Amino acid sequence: MYTLIKKEGKARRGQFETVHGTFQTPCFMNVGTAAAIKGGISSLDLVNLKCQVELCNTYHLHLRPTDKVIKEMGGLHKFMNWDKPILTDSGGFQVFSLAKLRKIKEEGVYFNSHVDGRRIFMGPEESMQIQSNLGSTIAMAFDECVDNHMAQITPDMDEQTKNRIIRKAYEYSKNSCERTTRWLYRCREEMARLNALPDTINKHQLLFGINQGSVFEDLRLRHMEEIAKLDMDGYAVGGLAVGEPTEEMYRILDAVVPVMPEKKIRYLMGVGTPSNIIEAVARGIDLFDCVMPSRNARHATIFTWNGIMHATNKCYETDSRPLDPECDCPTCRNFSRAYIRHLFKADEQLAGRLAVAHNLYFYNTLMEKIRDAIDNDEFDSFRAKYSGLLASKLED
Amino acid sequence: MYTLIKKEGKARRGQFETVHGTFQTPCFMNVGTAAAIKGGISSLDLVNLKCQVELCNTYHLHLRPTDKVIKEMGGLHKFMNWDKPILTDSGGFQVFSLAKLRKIKEEGVYFNSHVDGRRIFMGPEESMQIQSNLGSTIAMAFDECVDNHMAQITPDMDEQTKNRIIRKAYEYSKNSCERTTRWLYRCREEMARLNALPDTINKHQLLFGINQGSVFEDLRLRHMEEIAKLDMDGYAVGGLAVGEPTEEMYRILDAVVPVMPEKKIRYLMGVGTPSNIIEAVARGIDLFDCVMPSRNARHATIFTWNGIMHATNKCYETDSRPLDPECDCPTCRNFSRAYIRHLFKADEQLAGRLAVAHNLYFYNTLMEKIRDAIDNDEFDSFRAKYSGLLASKLED
Repeated sequence: MYTLIKKEGKARRGQFETVHGTFQTPCFMNVGTAAAIKGGISSLDLVNLKCQVELCNTYHLHLRPTDKVIKEMGGLHKFMNWDKPILTDSGGFQVFSLAKLRKIKEEGVYFNSHVDGRRIFMGPEESMQIQSNLGSTIAMAFDECVDNHMAQITPDMDEQTKNRIIRKAYEYSKNSCERTTRWLYRCREEMARLNALPDTINKHQLLFGINQGSVFEDLRLRHMEEIAKLDMDGYAVGGLAVGEPTEEMYRILDAVVPVMPEKKIRYLMGVGTPSNIIEAVARGIDLFDCVMPSRNARHATIFTWNGIMHATNKCYETDSRPLDPECDCPTCRNFSRAYIRHLFKADEQLAGRLAVAHNLYFYNTLMEKIRDAIDNDEFDSFRAKYSGLLASKLED
Repeated sequence: MYTLIKKEGKARRGQFETVHGTFQTPCFMNVGTAAAIKGGISSLDLVNLKCQVELCNTYHLHLRPTDKVIKEMGGLHKFMNWDKPILTDSGGFQVFSLAKLRKIKEEGVYFNSHVDGRRIFMGPEESMQIQSNLGSTIAMAFDECVDNHMAQITPDMDEQTKNRIIRKAYEYSKNSCERTTRWLYRCREEMARLNALPDTINKHQLLFGINQGSVFEDLRLRHMEEIAKLDMDGYAVGGLAVGEPTEEMYRILDAVVPVMPEKKIRYLMGVGTPSNIIEAVARGIDLFDCVMPSRNARHATIFTWNGIMHATNKCYETDSRPLDPECDCPTCRNFSRAYIRHLFKADEQLAGRLAVAHNLYFYNTLMEKIRDAIDNDEFDSFRAKYSGLLASKLED
């Protein structure tokens, strides 16, 4: 259950209680796609990286090791040895981004596994069943994440073609939104049924609804109004950060967040850079997830409190400073830029692990600082100081 | 300095004092080739894995990041953040196994880097200089690790051809041994010079001599007698475990170990399986190193107290037991076979890390148990119980 503690402007300071403990918001969830953080970070490490919530992917776990295996093992918490909250996505996003030969029908989606090609069906009931088997703290509703059809528009296109694309995208998004609403009803009903079964792992599994509507404000607002009626445990904004310009994302947030229920947690899915997060908090978002800190780390791209650095740069060859002198993460407390640069150059797995640990700690500390700032009515100046700085390139 | 504490048969219980602390023997050194253990294990982890000594490779570090960089960073200890003993090999083995187009002369070896192909020269003085720059606790003498020419012999070969190969191998090994002895004198002299320089990182760097002589007992004995005269800080048996049958290795150990100085530590290079280690301890060896525990772990081959298991076997799909129920390593205390099998199947780096941690802990615990056994005059029964068992396939 979400409790709003205080506000500064639209930025919200809150907490969210679950059967697996309470987490403080704004919060960034650390992504462990296949029940593990990429780069060799274990659930034991996460505790030292200030992680509050781990996110796992329903689609990946359904395919491997399968949700049946995980249920037999007592659920994701036992399987990964992580006793704090876990959020699972619905599988929808991966079905629409990874799977092949997908066919969307009213009952759900038929698609081919990207692992072994076998034909799979997933609809709202299947997604709820899988997430119930995983036993996560928070399940996400099964939705359609619509492609950004507007990306087809090019500057040199004539008005008529442009308008045809926009009309088509709008029409598609409208129908998809309506179906996603119908799917949400089915998700809610199925989740209630599953939570009441005697052998369900987490009988208090929560369910968040997801707002869609692409870049069309009126669709977004209408859809948000529709799903707000269902009194879900939380609401997410989906279908953003899928290739549209950042300003478009902020425009949609400006429009849709104000109509999201004030008493419910608000989750912006798949976002983003430190700057994106600060800007979304400023617009009233509470919860985030993104593969960026771990993925960038594995490519030696490091977030610091003075901007972004590339750990393999020649200038760090004999640099005895930590990645970020302002950071007190396990990596920065123990290892130098010179050592980490060497590990990347020598293709040692330890490089990725140390860098991922740092970047996750950076993101989790960013959220901590954001919370402290809101607590102290200093978020506005925090935003002014860091929103641009954290996106800049570090001056060596 | 080595102190022999007690003996049971030929098995020796001792300790070795260095400027970086004392380690107990018999001891297995954990191999961090390029200043890092493969699989993402950090120097901080090693402390929890009962590692007493880390071994790093001179050849690899000379090429990358270069010993000059490491010297500028204050030596290997600071670079890796490891304050316990470090042994560096001489580079000789890699020059003879990895490098291309090598040419051996009296002054040393000319070869091409396996990284970028550039022409490099390494002789006794160069090896000492590099190891002095690395600042390791123990440096190894620069020797020639002779190929096992006897491997050319096939069962269907006529006696004359066989004898020609044996004569040639003998002749080559004899000349090589004599050169290795001359190189040892040069190593010792150069090390003394380097240790006396004002900007040397470890002015107490120790130097071990290496016995060679291939599979020829008389060459081994003569060479051992020659190098024993130099009163080195320790003595290694090199050039074994390079493809010869295990029984050949034991035969050489049976011959050469009795003539090694009783008051000096005895190091069997590049060995081996748990069984090999137990058998070599029984023959009077004190110190070991091998990539086997980490390399095997990365291929899901796990050492347990009941034999060897393959963590990816289907039978472990829902096995909630730790890799080894008798083990209390961080991996076994926290994660199940089912989880680790999944991580391997999903190609998650965490799989390798957890498995490497277990295997290193297993090896380090094996040495601890061997030491306890000798302390309690129970090594003979320990050997009888485990020498075969640890080489067996685990019954699932």
